[in-house]
Amino acid sequence: MNYKMMGRFIGHILLVEAIFMLPSLLIGLYQKEEMASIGFAAGIGIILAIALILLFLSRDSKKGFKAKEGLVCVGISWIAMSILGSLPFYISREIPHYVDALFETVSGFTTTGASIVSDVEGLSMSILYWRSFTHWIGGMGVLVFVLAVGASGESNKGFTMHLLRAESPGPQVGKLVPKMKKTAEIMYLIYILLTIVNILFLLLGKMPVFDAVCTAFGTAGTGGFGIKNDSIAGYSPYIQNVCTVFMLLFGVNFSCYYMLLLKQFHSVFKDEELRLYLGIVIGSIALITLNLRGFYGTLEETVRHAAFQVASIVTTTGYATTDFDLWPGFSKAIILGLMVIGASAGSTGGGFKCARVLIILKSLRRNLRRAISPQKVQVVRINDRMIDEKVLENTNAYLSAYVIIIFISFILISIDKFSVTTNITAVLSCFNNIGPGLDAVGPTCNFGGYSLFSKLVLIVDMLAGRLEIFPILILFSRSTWGIIDTKRG
Amino acid sequence: MNYKMMGRFIGHILLVEAIFMLPSLLIGLYQKEEMASIGFAAGIGIILAIALILLFLSRDSKKGFKAKEGLVCVGISWIAMSILGSLPFYISREIPHYVDALFETVSGFTTTGASIVSDVEGLSMSILYWRSFTHWIGGMGVLVFVLAVGASGESNKGFTMHLLRAESPGPQVGKLVPKMKKTAEIMYLIYILLTIVNILFLLLGKMPVFDAVCTAFGTAGTGGFGIKNDSIAGYSPYIQNVCTVFMLLFGVNFSCYYMLLLKQFHSVFKDEELRLYLGIVIGSIALITLNLRGFYGTLEETVRHAAFQVASIVTTTGYATTDFDLWPGFSKAIILGLMVIGASAGSTGGGFKCARVLIILKSLRRNLRRAISPQKVQVVRINDRMIDEKVLENTNAYLSAYVIIIFISFILISIDKFSVTTNITAVLSCFNNIGPGLDAVGPTCNFGGYSLFSKLVLIVDMLAGRLEIFPILILFSRSTWGIIDTKRG
Repeated sequence: MNYKMMGRFIGHILLVEAIFMLPSLLIGLYQKEEMASIGFAAGIGIILAIALILLFLSRDSKKGFKAKEGLVCVGISWIAMSILGSLPFYISREIPHYVDALFETVSGFTTTGASIVSDVEGLSMSILYWRSFTHWIGGMGVLVFVLAVGASGESNKGFTMHLLRAESPGPQVGKLVPKMKKTAEIMYLIYILLTIVNILFLLLGKMPVFDAVCTAFGTAGTGGFGIKNDSIAGYSPYIQNVCTVFMLLFGVNFSCYYMLLLKQFHSVFKDEELRLYLGIVIGSIALITLNLRGFYGTLEETVRHAAFQVASIVTTTGYATTDFDLWPGFSKAIILGLMVIGASAGSTGGGFKCARVLIILKSLRRNLRRAISPQKVQVVRINDRMIDEKVLENTNAYLSAYVIIIFISFILISIDKFSVTTNITAVLSCFNNIGPGLDAVGPTCNFGGYSLFSKLVLIVDMLAGRLEIFPILILFSRSTWGIIDTKRG
Repeated sequence: MNYKMMGRFIGHILLVEAIFMLPSLLIGLYQKEEMASIGFAAGIGIILAIALILLFLSRDSKKGFKAKEGLVCVGISWIAMSILGSLPFYISREIPHYVDALFETVSGFTTTGASIVSDVEGLSMSILYWRSFTHWIGGMGVLVFVLAVGASGESNKGFTMHLLRAESPGPQVGKLVPKMKKTAEIMYLIYILLTIVNILFLLLGKMPVFDAVCTAFGTAGTGGFGIKNDSIAGYSPYIQNVCTVFMLLFGVNFSCYYMLLLKQFHSVFKDEELRLYLGIVIGSIALITLNLRGFYGTLEETVRHAAFQVASIVTTTGYATTDFDLWPGFSKAIILGLMVIGASAGSTGGGFKCARVLIILKSLRRNLRRAISPQKVQVVRINDRMIDEKVLENTNAYLSAYVIIIFISFILISIDKFSVTTNITAVLSCFNNIGPGLDAVGPTCNFGGYSLFSKLVLIVDMLAGRLEIFPILILFSRSTWGIIDTKRG
């Protein structure tokens, strides 16, 4: 292991985190929120100190990185960022228990939006700002940011590729342009631009500036932390509809936007993942609207709530305008299905991802056809391009890891005395980085009731989900650390 | 498609079914159960008539079968057997609605054991016998039986191989000896022998002969239809323990017994699937016993109930001695986990199968190691034998199909107004051929409350689960029937 190189990289990440914390400190000072300001000042101080020590210790690092070191690096960076990012919550005493503060921070960075805070409106403004900002940071990823601004000074192509692969959601990864740094830059530019447009649209609806900025952060990162106890329910129908549209926009593969900028409209229109994603969204809204006949006063209200909740869950954001736990079973089942599917690859959304659903469906169809006509050669194509067998294999491995982790987490948190539905949806919600589940973790509830142990399980789930399992699995794999011989079957 | 050949084979299957129905008719006549006797007589008559017509029409069939024809044949045979096997229930008016009668028959043949009958003790003896006997028939499979007795006169090796593959549970399929007919014979001999020993042990516990035979049928096929309203709860602890042991025995890969007969003790002891299976059983019993502290009067009672329920669920039998729906959440979560895992490949049990769990785990570990050290060649070994990449691929395809079918079925039956837990476990229970689920389909309840539509969905699930998905998928695939061009991506 090239520990010095890893230390150097993590040092840079933490430096960026300290800088990202500054606005919250300024808000705290401006609003005269004494405890919160102390929290941010102390947080920044500690993070800076650790970052500088790391950079000092690794000043003579040698280049040359292996694939596994890239993956391990990503895992450790996210854990370090979370542990240190939770300091303001804890030091300010606004979240008195450290594991709760960690849960909230991991939930923020991973863009889950599951909260242990029951009275969000009781938090100070600077804390609320940091809470929402973690979504924005986590949505596109800090490592991608570091690559984009070139702070790491790392020119090893394999290494940056591994980092980007590990942190970007989805199986195909947007290698938009040959140069990785350029790709990271383009992604961030689109991200920033869309966020600004989102804020402007919210301001047009007369939303207060602070609310608009925080809500847009949560939307852009597909996070879901609200700054009101009733999430988005209290805002006007216009604002709710703006949120619906922008949640959906942030759930689209960003390479589609890049293609739009390049005026490749035909490719965007023909994109199979985009079609599947929009098909799922429109189909779900239609079915739920049909199922909710008579549930709300008017058709407009029904469609608005159906569309908002579908957009919120499929993009794994987690905002709510209504309590879908009260909906009839069929609508709840669709919501549960959307929780698993998730948004597009290369978006800020989580979940299994539409691209993977597409690959799994097509590879299953291929296997069926092979059983029917064993002599024919069958290939899997997406967007008219042949999918490499390695990608199929990895996607299938992802599905197994996905099922196994959900399975084990569910059994582990069942030690707490919640219902089967609560526990299943809590795991699905955290692992897919959504936020709310059903029953005792429904949209009007929070995760505060879980035991310390279950919270830790869910924290690992959120991280594993955000980093798409492998970096976390590799971090805990014995062969990574050379403990066992990797040649054994 | 070689329709004549298919007709000939299905004709033979139905002939065997008519013969299998005879004992029930005799019991009905002996017990003077008028309506039931009419039901069986009419059933046998109709089945014989159809079988003879099929055999007449296909008298000049040509040899030469394709793989897909074998699979389609298996699917159609099972559907025909179920549709006709339900006639006695329906004609005798003991199950007044035809779809209910079909549900009960499919549940029997697929060895699910999910029932729509609320008062089992109200059924006549001949009907109870047929109900339990369907489990025994379905456990090892009618097609395997037909092969074993050589009734089909089919000597096409590829064809019999495909049939056996399609009907035998598990990914590796016990091609015990080079000749297929011989393998089928050995499997059936072991099956009959173990069933007789089971009956003898039950009789030793002073169980009435009729009860012992029916209970052994349900145990051997890992079915679960009981002849008492409280399943096995009313019998003595000795009888309950005998059931526990035999359920577990019928969940073992039958090739292990063959190896025992050949005195290859070392291979049996080293068998990785057997170790995993026993490990899961013992671990689950231990954890549930620990979790149930104070739930029952004595430790003996706790262990007995824990062991019985674990054996019943992991082997997908579905008998019960206690209502595990009342157990604490952690125990219920383990039960839910066991529902998914299921018994060993090559046993009469259903579920995902331990062999597949093993393959999925090892192939996932391989992928992880590949990520850590991309340059090394990594192979997957089980029992020191290298697993072919094709098997890995098929197992992964099986997992996707498994997840997708559960997913879609769950959403479809959610149209009925049951809870999320009820619906999820109903699908898991039917698809894995178990019987009871949780909540409204718990061990003390039945499936009678579901709508016609949901019952049909669950019927398809039971068949798809028993035949391991592919024959049913292929039956419904457009490319099987040449409707679409199979060359398209």
